[in-house]
Amino acid sequence: MSPSVLEAEPAGCGLRAATRAGVRTIWFDRPDRRNAMTLDMFRDYYAALLAADADPQVRAIVVTGAGDWFCAGADPEALRALLDERDRDRLVNEFGFEPHLPMTLGTPIVAAVNGGAAGLGLVHALYADVRFLAAQARLAAAFSRLGLIAEYGSAWLLPRLVGVGNALDLLVSGRKIDAAEALRIGLVQRVLPRDEVLTEAQAYAADLAAHCSPASMAVIRRQIWSGLETGAAEATADAARLMAASLAGADFGEALAGQAEGRAPRFAARAGA
Amino acid sequence: MSPSVLEAEPAGCGLRAATRAGVRTIWFDRPDRRNAMTLDMFRDYYAALLAADADPQVRAIVVTGAGDWFCAGADPEALRALLDERDRDRLVNEFGFEPHLPMTLGTPIVAAVNGGAAGLGLVHALYADVRFLAAQARLAAAFSRLGLIAEYGSAWLLPRLVGVGNALDLLVSGRKIDAAEALRIGLVQRVLPRDEVLTEAQAYAADLAAHCSPASMAVIRRQIWSGLETGAAEATADAARLMAASLAGADFGEALAGQAEGRAPRFAARAGA
Amino acid sequence: MSPSVLEAEPAGCGLRAATRAGVRTIWFDRPDRRNAMTLDMFRDYYAALLAADADPQVRAIVVTGAGDWFCAGADPEALRALLDERDRDRLVNEFGFEPHLPMTLGTPIVAAVNGGAAGLGLVHALYADVRFLAAQARLAAAFSRLGLIAEYGSAWLLPRLVGVGNALDLLVSGRKIDAAEALRIGLVQRVLPRDEVLTEAQAYAADLAAHCSPASMAVIRRQIWSGLETGAAEATADAARLMAASLAGADFGEALAGQAEGRAPRFAARAGA
Repeated sequence: MSPSVLEAEPAGCGLRAATRAGVRTIWFDRPDRRNAMTLDMFRDYYAALLAADADPQVRAIVVTGAGDWFCAGADPEALRALLDERDRDRLVNEFGFEPHLPMTLGTPIVAAVNGGAAGLGLVHALYADVRFLAAQARLAAAFSRLGLIAEYGSAWLLPRLVGVGNALDLLVSGRKIDAAEALRIGLVQRVLPRDEVLTEAQAYAADLAAHCSPASMAVIRRQIWSGLETGAAEATADAARLMAASLAGADFGEALAGQAEGRAPRFAARAGA
Repeated sequence: MSPSVLEAEPAGCGLRAATRAGVRTIWFDRPDRRNAMTLDMFRDYYAALLAADADPQVRAIVVTGAGDWFCAGADPEALRALLDERDRDRLVNEFGFEPHLPMTLGTPIVAAVNGGAAGLGLVHALYADVRFLAAQARLAAAFSRLGLIAEYGSAWLLPRLVGVGNALDLLVSGRKIDAAEALRIGLVQRVLPRDEVLTEAQAYAADLAAHCSPASMAVIRRQIWSGLETGAAEATADAARLMAASLAGADFGEALAGQAEGRAPRFAARAGA
Repeated sequence: MSPSVLEAEPAGCGLRAATRAGVRTIWFDRPDRRNAMTLDMFRDYYAALLAADADPQVRAIVVTGAGDWFCAGADPEALRALLDERDRDRLVNEFGFEPHLPMTLGTPIVAAVNGGAAGLGLVHALYADVRFLAAQARLAAAFSRLGLIAEYGSAWLLPRLVGVGNALDLLVSGRKIDAAEALRIGLVQRVLPRDEVLTEAQAYAADLAAHCSPASMAVIRRQIWSGLETGAAEATADAARLMAASLAGADFGEALAGQAEGRAPRFAARAGA
């Protein structure tokens, strides 16, 4: 069985985490506030991602919400405080992490979107590699309805996830969409009954941990993200270099040995993790 | 009730327009010619978009067709005239607008595709933010069947709307697709019974006009379009600067005030509109 | 009737080909090895694409697999041999073609994915313009499960075909997907009963050969691929130049003449083909 929030340890402001079978699950854990995010919680979440990425025992990350929501966005009181100039400067200037930090990690992230996600909460889901969504949940960018802009790279990410038409629709209008629409436009990869979202996301992550080379996953993530910013010729030349290295690596031999012996491969932890 | 073409005023060659509740509706109005577009009509359409964008009363634009078609493309007689060299040069050199002008506006555009769209007619739909399509309508790029090329940025836009495979399919073959396929590939955001397309598009636009900050919508559109041509780091740094400005802006305070008072926000018109 | 593999001629190592009605069909033809690809077969396949592209009788290409599979990827014995250093260097350094060669051709390619495709087999499908998939077939990138990386431009192509979320899902996990999911995410354009995949792909290609200008198709393919690496302003300016040339070309006049005379156009072969 995969761990639940009840078994998880505190992992920073408004966060809990537990590791099993190579999968670290991180919970947004302010259920009485719809997991709305303060600046400290946001920073601690990114620190928790970095720590998981550096842990050789962790081969995949699951992020989810405790209670009924995934994350309702920035905490309303924190938002109100931003009308005061100093907190605003702190938010923008002293956050300490690049907003696109999840793109720079070697460890894949699966978002188990157990309930509603809005604003910053949606952004956190967008930065995951894969999104599993509860059937009754609704998603909204929301920014334009608050007089705000498309925060934290959402205007860069969304067109690359769902096409520029769907991105304009969601970001310009800020309207809520349901799970069926999210699946149709490719915003999420699976829709599941609410009580299966986390366990299925953990099972997907456990499969990565058991059967996929950590080094391969790290290289492939980097290829995909960097490939968005290069041409085809450069990307294929880069792939040829990486392919030569992977064919000479221990993981390829181990995969073939596992096939020959009818067993799962035993890939080493990623160097640097 | 939203305005119909019967209540609209002439707005240039082959065009009519009406404004209600912050929404300007523009009709292609040559129904006896399937709304096929002459060069003058094309130029007047772009002038009408620019005028709407500059009008502080207009917060969203709807474009649709009078009669059974959205727009069958370039007018056949105009096409035939292009076999004469002078008109051809005029078409390409003296049009006076950049073809991607709609991308540069601050005001969102909703295409109410009430019937068939082909060639240049499809291009006009592609340049809208959001597309609502009549269930019985068919769409076609058509260019390759006329010995022509992918006109007016369609080869740049389509892969970003529906992915490069679907774009190759539509543009290389020039074949007709029906509404179900258009929805499946993400080319349109909604499919509706024919007599609901315009009213639903106007309702969507009226929601933008009533509930979304004009300044936010303008910034978000710019973020999305410019973000297609930049990297993630640059886009998130740009978003941080814009976020600081929006948190200091009047619209954010008004949105919070509206929330606190249980009323819709009263956002100001966009500066410059 | 379209040709079957039984009527086709040998066309290189593990390949057969036949041409009818302007359509060259190429078969991966090692059915007892699931059409797994040796290095010689890969090279001969690209040579066969180049030859088809240079043949004025060929206006569209169909690629498919003989037997139950489309292509299971690199040949397992060839993979094992790659543990020897010399063959590895040969693979990467002496292949002699750019992996993205299909993108550089003027002739459209339709993939008739008659059965499973994995690894390099999936890559060959991805490089086609359009993909028709057998209803019972499954697709997998597979690389991460072999300790390998995203080979031959797949990390560049997939996000542009299905969005970056679906690309991360498929490439990081290497998991198998079925035809319904492939259609939903836009990885394939049509799903068909197994015994209709090839004939429908050939019919699609025959329509291109009969009704679409070879010059138009070549220009449009180049516009789409090059447009992925340029901005909107540059792409629309390029389109204006190409439009002026196409309006002055013989194919446009022939298309209008065909319309006026109620017959199919008789477009000339592409210069250079």
